[in-house]
Amino acid sequence: MARIRLGMVGGGNDAFIGGVHRIASRIDGHFELVAGALSSTPDKARASAEALGLDPARSYGSFEEMAEAEAARADGIEAVSIVTPNHVHYPAARAFLSRGIHVICDKPLTATFADAEAMEKAVAESKALFILTHNYTGYPMIRQARQMVADGLLGRIRIVQAEYPQDWLTDAVETEGVKQAEWRTDPERSGAGGSIGDIGTHAYNLACFVSGLTGTELAADLQSFGAGRRLDDNAHILLRYDGGARGMLWCSQVAPGNENGLRLRIYGETGGLEWAQEDPNYLWFTPHGEATRRLTRNGPGAIAAATSVSRIPSGHPEGYLEGFATIYAEAAEAIRAVQGGASRDAVMGVLPGIGAGLEGMAFIRACVASAGNNAAWTRL
Amino acid sequence: MARIRLGMVGGGNDAFIGGVHRIASRIDGHFELVAGALSSTPDKARASAEALGLDPARSYGSFEEMAEAEAARADGIEAVSIVTPNHVHYPAARAFLSRGIHVICDKPLTATFADAEAMEKAVAESKALFILTHNYTGYPMIRQARQMVADGLLGRIRIVQAEYPQDWLTDAVETEGVKQAEWRTDPERSGAGGSIGDIGTHAYNLACFVSGLTGTELAADLQSFGAGRRLDDNAHILLRYDGGARGMLWCSQVAPGNENGLRLRIYGETGGLEWAQEDPNYLWFTPHGEATRRLTRNGPGAIAAATSVSRIPSGHPEGYLEGFATIYAEAAEAIRAVQGGASRDAVMGVLPGIGAGLEGMAFIRACVASAGNNAAWTRL
Amino acid sequence: MARIRLGMVGGGNDAFIGGVHRIASRIDGHFELVAGALSSTPDKARASAEALGLDPARSYGSFEEMAEAEAARADGIEAVSIVTPNHVHYPAARAFLSRGIHVICDKPLTATFADAEAMEKAVAESKALFILTHNYTGYPMIRQARQMVADGLLGRIRIVQAEYPQDWLTDAVETEGVKQAEWRTDPERSGAGGSIGDIGTHAYNLACFVSGLTGTELAADLQSFGAGRRLDDNAHILLRYDGGARGMLWCSQVAPGNENGLRLRIYGETGGLEWAQEDPNYLWFTPHGEATRRLTRNGPGAIAAATSVSRIPSGHPEGYLEGFATIYAEAAEAIRAVQGGASRDAVMGVLPGIGAGLEGMAFIRACVASAGNNAAWTRL
Amino acid sequence: MARIRLGMVGGGNDAFIGGVHRIASRIDGHFELVAGALSSTPDKARASAEALGLDPARSYGSFEEMAEAEAARADGIEAVSIVTPNHVHYPAARAFLSRGIHVICDKPLTATFADAEAMEKAVAESKALFILTHNYTGYPMIRQARQMVADGLLGRIRIVQAEYPQDWLTDAVETEGVKQAEWRTDPERSGAGGSIGDIGTHAYNLACFVSGLTGTELAADLQSFGAGRRLDDNAHILLRYDGGARGMLWCSQVAPGNENGLRLRIYGETGGLEWAQEDPNYLWFTPHGEATRRLTRNGPGAIAAATSVSRIPSGHPEGYLEGFATIYAEAAEAIRAVQGGASRDAVMGVLPGIGAGLEGMAFIRACVASAGNNAAWTRL
Repeated sequence: MARIRLGMVGGGNDAFIGGVHRIASRIDGHFELVAGALSSTPDKARASAEALGLDPARSYGSFEEMAEAEAARADGIEAVSIVTPNHVHYPAARAFLSRGIHVICDKPLTATFADAEAMEKAVAESKALFILTHNYTGYPMIRQARQMVADGLLGRIRIVQAEYPQDWLTDAVETEGVKQAEWRTDPERSGAGGSIGDIGTHAYNLACFVSGLTGTELAADLQSFGAGRRLDDNAHILLRYDGGARGMLWCSQVAPGNENGLRLRIYGETGGLEWAQEDPNYLWFTPHGEATRRLTRNGPGAIAAATSVSRIPSGHPEGYLEGFATIYAEAAEAIRAVQGGASRDAVMGVLPGIGAGLEGMAFIRACVASAGNNAAWTRL
Repeated sequence: MARIRLGMVGGGNDAFIGGVHRIASRIDGHFELVAGALSSTPDKARASAEALGLDPARSYGSFEEMAEAEAARADGIEAVSIVTPNHVHYPAARAFLSRGIHVICDKPLTATFADAEAMEKAVAESKALFILTHNYTGYPMIRQARQMVADGLLGRIRIVQAEYPQDWLTDAVETEGVKQAEWRTDPERSGAGGSIGDIGTHAYNLACFVSGLTGTELAADLQSFGAGRRLDDNAHILLRYDGGARGMLWCSQVAPGNENGLRLRIYGETGGLEWAQEDPNYLWFTPHGEATRRLTRNGPGAIAAATSVSRIPSGHPEGYLEGFATIYAEAAEAIRAVQGGASRDAVMGVLPGIGAGLEGMAFIRACVASAGNNAAWTRL
Repeated sequence: MARIRLGMVGGGNDAFIGGVHRIASRIDGHFELVAGALSSTPDKARASAEALGLDPARSYGSFEEMAEAEAARADGIEAVSIVTPNHVHYPAARAFLSRGIHVICDKPLTATFADAEAMEKAVAESKALFILTHNYTGYPMIRQARQMVADGLLGRIRIVQAEYPQDWLTDAVETEGVKQAEWRTDPERSGAGGSIGDIGTHAYNLACFVSGLTGTELAADLQSFGAGRRLDDNAHILLRYDGGARGMLWCSQVAPGNENGLRLRIYGETGGLEWAQEDPNYLWFTPHGEATRRLTRNGPGAIAAATSVSRIPSGHPEGYLEGFATIYAEAAEAIRAVQGGASRDAVMGVLPGIGAGLEGMAFIRACVASAGNNAAWTRL
Repeated sequence: MARIRLGMVGGGNDAFIGGVHRIASRIDGHFELVAGALSSTPDKARASAEALGLDPARSYGSFEEMAEAEAARADGIEAVSIVTPNHVHYPAARAFLSRGIHVICDKPLTATFADAEAMEKAVAESKALFILTHNYTGYPMIRQARQMVADGLLGRIRIVQAEYPQDWLTDAVETEGVKQAEWRTDPERSGAGGSIGDIGTHAYNLACFVSGLTGTELAADLQSFGAGRRLDDNAHILLRYDGGARGMLWCSQVAPGNENGLRLRIYGETGGLEWAQEDPNYLWFTPHGEATRRLTRNGPGAIAAATSVSRIPSGHPEGYLEGFATIYAEAAEAIRAVQGGASRDAVMGVLPGIGAGLEGMAFIRACVASAGNNAAWTRL
């Protein structure tokens, strides 16, 4: 199947989430990145495009320029990923939506609520798709949890506990040159929400996605613990959902020891579910009055909602693919080095080669020989 | 940077490891799959090639044909992935090595020790690289463990405990039409090793890779518990390593409750390390006499050996990328459906869109309003 | 050292917490139970006293009677444990305090705030000690956590997350004859608090005990999910502490899959601590910017605050003592049976005896023989 | 019920296991320690007896003296606990067995196999009970595991993996004055087994106890890693059991990071079980082809074999009793101090008292008030 031609706004060299979007777009082979407005700084945009192997003619200085030029090409982009700070989401999305180009946009939607409403209008006036990357909804066990709730396995939902602690803003690192921290703590670029916008929206989205409920009201206690910080870096929130369920949501970026502790627990009249993003292959399910089950991605008890978005067998945590990819990446590096004239021995590094293979075969041979001799000691 | 042109031998539609190799080759964007001899069954080879979008002219009926044809093309493949049952590894690899095409080959090296020695000769006579996918050596925390041992943080190594239990062969499923089980339990296609070849070699390779030691002798007790099974499905092995270290290796495919339980523990005179593949983002390090530390990929205490092969920040288990990729995959599906004429509302499925975005913005707005009113209850 | 003579109010045969108090009073050998008013039902009081081996003359029909009689004896009780439903705490305590008898009282203090103030007065007017069994403050790692906070290892405290979920009231079991549920869900006997009184007070006490902070205000959303239930069975509470720290407290008795999930997490400017009652031997400590440490009771990093209340070495979870005690209990049963005329073989049950001992010795002998013969196979 | 009169041989002030035996004998109130030959050093024996509150007339200088004197008393001991180094087990046990006094003896049985056979004879010639404290068989979930295997829930057993790593002998601490290490590494006092006798016998006993199998032969690789150490401190053992099951046993006292890591895994044709001593309240059960269940002591799925030896409800890890006991121990200390004339305020230390009680009541009152006012903020 032909790949979908993709452009990207933002995501220059030192951005975190742009690289994530690019890898995600490649994993299943559905997209091909062909154009970009990768930075608002021209030099950085150019260098980033070059590093990515983009056609220089399709590396643009601004999203407006890119939208106009790509819309005019026969082989122009069909979709665009917007991975900029929040305040750029709306104007960039509008530029592409108005030209019928599908938009994949990072969350939160916009920096201001007014922009969000304008975005809603822009989507309504376009025929193109608008997709927000609430990526945590893509985990197999989250899909399974959602389906189990929908299937009534928990009964009527009573309690929804969501939390998302991090620790990377414990110190005021935005004053020490950490770019990721700078824009996230700046109301001009992030909007009214600090931690609530950056990670609280993820937790809230996930709570609604899995429970099938909508929040009706909340009471929020927001704090800015970091010295001189203008946006919240910790939020304690009580929530009431439709149908009478109650919940809490805690998000924090100042809780030492928490790297990315997104966690969801849902309890109903007849059962409970627990899931933690840092241990994503497991879903803990308790039918009330029975022993807790550890459901695994693709393991016994996995349902179609999960298996249909699983790429590999149970027991292979999804990082398995990345470990594998590292071998491929190092193989590519070695191949290119040899193609460039390097000697074969010089390029293998820690890559397993024929030697490792022979050792493995010697291991098998010795095992079989030892076993054939009543498990006697056998030289390797 | 231009992508390396890649071919594949094996990996047709219902193969497991072929799909893994393809994803792994795409993640970092270094390879482009352009040719294949994907199955020894012509129909299946054709169908698999079509599903992957290969040029039909470059879908071959056999690896010999592919090696010859591709070597003759100016834009022929530069590297090939061999992902067949073990007994095909050697003849396939030889065909490409002899033409200077780099080989990436699944483990174990070959089905027989004689083939392994022939493979060694074929590698020696070629200028091409030979890379064996001992993929577990690609995990960041394994790289870190290896470096920590090499740096002397454990002192002289005394004990190496390796284990790799699975449960998928508990019943004799090879008699029930499970293809993955059929060839793995067949000496003609797998060679002399059952579980020791399929997974024991991984465990042994990892033990050596991390400890920096080489095994000198072993005593192996092999069992075939599955009814009528001809190869081992459980192995209990004592190992002696150079330098006086001792170890055990247990691999099993008949241990219910174990999906893919590869685990390594290494103890030296001054410290210990523990790592488990199903929880791969953590490395547990104990300097003797101090509290155990939980080292995380890219977290505090991570060293260059690990961070240089990490794609994403700490706290985002590597499955994070796949969750993200699922959003992209579903976005691609939606885009193609809309391009094919479907209505926009009909294609979104569970994809988060403008609605989810507005809910997030309403959440932020309500949080800020509530907090501004002493955390009073506020409608969402 | 002579044991302290102890009486008990409440704690008849089918009470849970009375048995716990009795075991706790025996573990270190400081108390001897010599008198009781074990039930308000005379028959049950008598039967319970007999089962405990109390002198029938010191089994009383009411706490008033017991207080008067014991105060008049030269060998009367020195202390009393009050383990009744909450509404009896105050009148019972007053009866003993007014006679100079020390009181050990279960929590919460009383059923009503008026009683609590009266209790305060009764304590003030007595010379006797009043001790409330907030038993979770007795765990070694809680003592260590408190000391670490006091020593400034977390810096100024910012966030206090406390939770205490259970699931035993998920269904309305108080209507099905579950005695423990009956009085706990009855405002006449429990007071104004359901889950907040029964377990919320534990969580709040622990949060204050460890953090060294005092709450200044709270916002509480209480629910009664159980059909027809009059007291809260779930509580979501926001808390503000002196010094600017913020926190949440969740307690629930309707969260399926949670048996007794008391958990405390405290974060300050320079570090974080986490502890869970169901895994009480570990305290997780993160100095900000460093790897998380797993501190163990009596292990490396344990400080005097913890080791001084530890009875056994690290690695022996405290249940070790109870496993040991089971052997002793079964030994007692066997000894009494033999004393009663049973044959020796008939009474051993699963108790390990000479046979197990010989097997162990044969194991050692075989190990040494095998090892002396290059780890050759050796008959057991 | 009257307590059984108990004596003790060994267990003087600085012994570890003697104190454990004493606590275990008190927990359920079945025994009363009334006599002792607590040390072979007279001064230490006397001081230890005094600290324990023994009648000085029943503190003996040797076990022979104690056996003779106690056997002659009408109120003499009915049972004796022997908690000495291994080489004293046999002569001490014989002295009591020959007088009809029941013996509770620490493991391993004796220091030499000849003594073990003599012990067997002494038991046979006596009517008294001989009980070996393989204490790990007393854990509720071990009882449950054994029963589940016996009930056929795992089918025919195939694999038994036992391990017991510790780290306290990593350095040669027996040369640095650590008494526990001195006798355990001394062949004169421990016998032929080092780690295999001290902890390997526990692991082997537990493997047999739960599996219901008996070992038939083994192959053992023993090491002495500690400098100058004469007995093994690490053992790697292959085992064959009757009925065709195979297993491994690893015990070590030189594996840094392992405090007391006894762990048992058993796999049969239709299911698997896993248990770890450091997390003893859980038993992980996998019926082959279904999701793994987390069985808890006294929780859903617990069977009579476990609940009959559980003292407290599920979710209260057994250490709960010890935390509770610490409150009682500190209460005793405070009571004695007040009885000795100290002021009440001076003795409370960290004990919760009336103040903690009032805080709890204020917490409940504020919760109810806040909830009654739509969860408004309320002063504590």
